[in-house]
Amino acid sequence: MIFARFGETGQEKPGVLDDQGRLRDLSGVVPDLAGAVLADLPRIDPESLPLVAGTPRIGPPVGQVGKLICIGLNYTDHAEEVGVAAPPEPVVFLKATSAICGPQDPVYLPRGAEKGDWEVELGVVIGRRAKYVTEAEALDHVAGYTIVNDVSERAFQMERAGQWTKGKSCDTFAPMGPWLVTADAVGDVQALDLSLDLNGARMQTGTTARMIFSVAHIVAYLSALMTLEPGDVIATGTPPGVGMGRKPPRYLTEGDEMVVRISGLGEQRSPVRRDP
Amino acid sequence: MIFARFGETGQEKPGVLDDQGRLRDLSGVVPDLAGAVLADLPRIDPESLPLVAGTPRIGPPVGQVGKLICIGLNYTDHAEEVGVAAPPEPVVFLKATSAICGPQDPVYLPRGAEKGDWEVELGVVIGRRAKYVTEAEALDHVAGYTIVNDVSERAFQMERAGQWTKGKSCDTFAPMGPWLVTADAVGDVQALDLSLDLNGARMQTGTTARMIFSVAHIVAYLSALMTLEPGDVIATGTPPGVGMGRKPPRYLTEGDEMVVRISGLGEQRSPVRRDP
Repeated sequence: MIFARFGETGQEKPGVLDDQGRLRDLSGVVPDLAGAVLADLPRIDPESLPLVAGTPRIGPPVGQVGKLICIGLNYTDHAEEVGVAAPPEPVVFLKATSAICGPQDPVYLPRGAEKGDWEVELGVVIGRRAKYVTEAEALDHVAGYTIVNDVSERAFQMERAGQWTKGKSCDTFAPMGPWLVTADAVGDVQALDLSLDLNGARMQTGTTARMIFSVAHIVAYLSALMTLEPGDVIATGTPPGVGMGRKPPRYLTEGDEMVVRISGLGEQRSPVRRDP
Repeated sequence: MIFARFGETGQEKPGVLDDQGRLRDLSGVVPDLAGAVLADLPRIDPESLPLVAGTPRIGPPVGQVGKLICIGLNYTDHAEEVGVAAPPEPVVFLKATSAICGPQDPVYLPRGAEKGDWEVELGVVIGRRAKYVTEAEALDHVAGYTIVNDVSERAFQMERAGQWTKGKSCDTFAPMGPWLVTADAVGDVQALDLSLDLNGARMQTGTTARMIFSVAHIVAYLSALMTLEPGDVIATGTPPGVGMGRKPPRYLTEGDEMVVRISGLGEQRSPVRRDP
């Protein structure tokens, strides 16, 4: 099944797509796509639900995200492009959850940002609490999948004292969605195509088959470090083609548009703006 | 005023201390010490509220923390002890909010942890939304102060590929509280004494007068990177005396007890356990 959240920022309602891709209102069934609801997503015939009128804003497909955990350098060819060795175990960092926005919302470059960059990533939405789970058990704890663009400011990330956090956590630096697609509807999560276009030109092309650490490995690995809770989201790393890796580098500017796709998970379309 | 949250984990109620240090039940006035409530904490005579019976567990003094932002290497003498130069601007990282626990709850060392360490820190609780605020405005956005022990596993933090996240975000690695003390009751936040005792022996002694970057500077600085929201907490760095800096190093083991104090903010008492 394919779920979504629609409505204004902070007031999104839950929805579900029917067989014809029309959005149906799920708010009479569950209050939100968040927390415990994700452990047991409603298996309901979408045709039985009211159609959503008009074309509302689509929000991030998960509400009340507790943690937005990211894996760095998880595609061999991306590690090569940025000139570092493939890591011996997953590289882990956190993005502030206040960076999350919808899949069509503007991405705002903060004041002073000169090196805004893009990263298409497969997002894993945790459905059931996971602590010390094995790789064999790991996918049972996943509610579904979505797209995350791990927008990054490379100078903030790497040239300003310390950790990557500064370049990863700016407001709107985590467009998420449009859909939360349940695992059974995704099929083999290690065989999905990813892409990112900038102003109509292909920048990133990849496949989750090239991940260094699989989704199951990542979930198990993280669960030995911290409890994964329903509504946590894991962004699993990006394939080659980021702006920093181009020669010369290409960074985001006001007026750009990023179009981000993963097979079966829909499409993001993010205009780029500059904070006043 | 001095606020607190009491009750079992995840079901804490808001409270306030009266002039004699007795806990009063605030749950008839506000639902929790969280979110928008922090922007306008109730100015109520505690004597008008019911006494809380018995000695309930004290929880973290803020609910629904959205971000737990940490500043690294913010005391000159701590930077010296770990052998690095004072940073030119604040070092920023995030701790998972799932690491937060109460000020008397056990700290659990995860499986494989051999280098558990302590860090007494002044915690700043955001009360009003802050974005691009100036240093002069910054403290107007602070609801109050608390104690955070930024518990860290040094091998996870620094010897296992990538960012500090792995050694900072384990469950129970952020004992918080006991009190949320309003800014007016704290007085000069840059003149507070901090200490941490391990099994009765003094390990850390410091004063917030030795911070490299002041609380006001940190709030303003962070607000230019990301929106600070009510209920976000900033841990502002630790003074000298961490286990890693001792010769030889001293790391946490099962059965240890940390006692953590900041003048006017109360005392934490955290027994150390090992995850089974």
